[in-house]
Amino acid sequence: MTMAKRDTYTPESLLAVAVEVFNERGYDGTSMEHLSRAAGISKSSIYHHVRGKEELLRLAISRALDGLFGILEEPAAKQGRAIDRLQHVTRRTAEVLMTELPYVTLLLRVRGNTDTERWAMERRREFDQQVAELLKRAAADGDLRSDVDVRLATRLLFGMINSIVEWYRPQAGHEGHQDEDGDEVAEAVVRMAFAGLRTS
Amino acid sequence: MTMAKRDTYTPESLLAVAVEVFNERGYDGTSMEHLSRAAGISKSSIYHHVRGKEELLRLAISRALDGLFGILEEPAAKQGRAIDRLQHVTRRTAEVLMTELPYVTLLLRVRGNTDTERWAMERRREFDQQVAELLKRAAADGDLRSDVDVRLATRLLFGMINSIVEWYRPQAGHEGHQDEDGDEVAEAVVRMAFAGLRTS
Repeated sequence: MTMAKRDTYTPESLLAVAVEVFNERGYDGTSMEHLSRAAGISKSSIYHHVRGKEELLRLAISRALDGLFGILEEPAAKQGRAIDRLQHVTRRTAEVLMTELPYVTLLLRVRGNTDTERWAMERRREFDQQVAELLKRAAADGDLRSDVDVRLATRLLFGMINSIVEWYRPQAGHEGHQDEDGDEVAEAVVRMAFAGLRTS
Repeated sequence: MTMAKRDTYTPESLLAVAVEVFNERGYDGTSMEHLSRAAGISKSSIYHHVRGKEELLRLAISRALDGLFGILEEPAAKQGRAIDRLQHVTRRTAEVLMTELPYVTLLLRVRGNTDTERWAMERRREFDQQVAELLKRAAADGDLRSDVDVRLATRLLFGMINSIVEWYRPQAGHEGHQDEDGDEVAEAVVRMAFAGLRTS
């Protein structure tokens, strides 16, 4: 039995602990016991906050999805030429991935067995499809190179952006706001994806 | 007890089965029992071919690494301007990833606890560093855009290439040689990474 600490958790702070455990052990490999130990409170205290681990997963995935879908509602994602909207969405997707790192990491790793996992994968696909739609329009405008298939370009673009979760770690002391390092990463993604590495 | 079939495995064909199981269950999650069941031969038959699962891992990782390091020995990787060598290495890395898909997938997923896993990660880092060296030289030649950090560009480049393992599946009936689909993917990687998606 671990020393139980007084339960001073808010839904947000409990979620932060749960997401860390999910990312480390995998969602399937995480039990309520693991969550209880990581949080330092009893299982019944956890049940005081949420119905169980699937609700924690749903809350965590929602946070990632709210961040991502919120991008598509920004003025710069809705107005102007498709290529510029796409470029904005690319930069912001990289930024949201870094500011919401553990939540988006979880979203990207989910492989669905439960309803919540299947819903997460479905919503993620919807986001990808909306971005693919922007690529299609940019191609129709003649602003996107015509010798790369739109479906393939979408996959490679997300492949590049999503790979950031493998190595990006926020700088200590800069939590809560986008640090310079994160800005540099987002800018590098946009430059590489849209203008390429080679000087012309 | 499963029906044991006659052991007609070669080291290569046994390796192909093992790699599939490793990729599905994870190396840590795979027991000799799992391998025996997947191969349809007894554990002692497997021991007739190899000393154990770590040797199978070493053989599989070696195959991926031989493919990757072989690229760096190709004339087009050794002669000419650094930017052109880098572009060749990028295309060929994507190609090797697709022709050796299960082996490179395993290499990319390995997280080291055993000596073999640590060796795999070390060798992978060496490959990445040799490619980073090419980026540095291309930057010194003025052929690489100067507003993207070399370390960051290397990470994003590999992020894009390595993401191919998440969705690429060779077309049926085209095994054993690079199919058109694979050529198209490798070409798209090169175009996006070096020239960018946007028409100028």
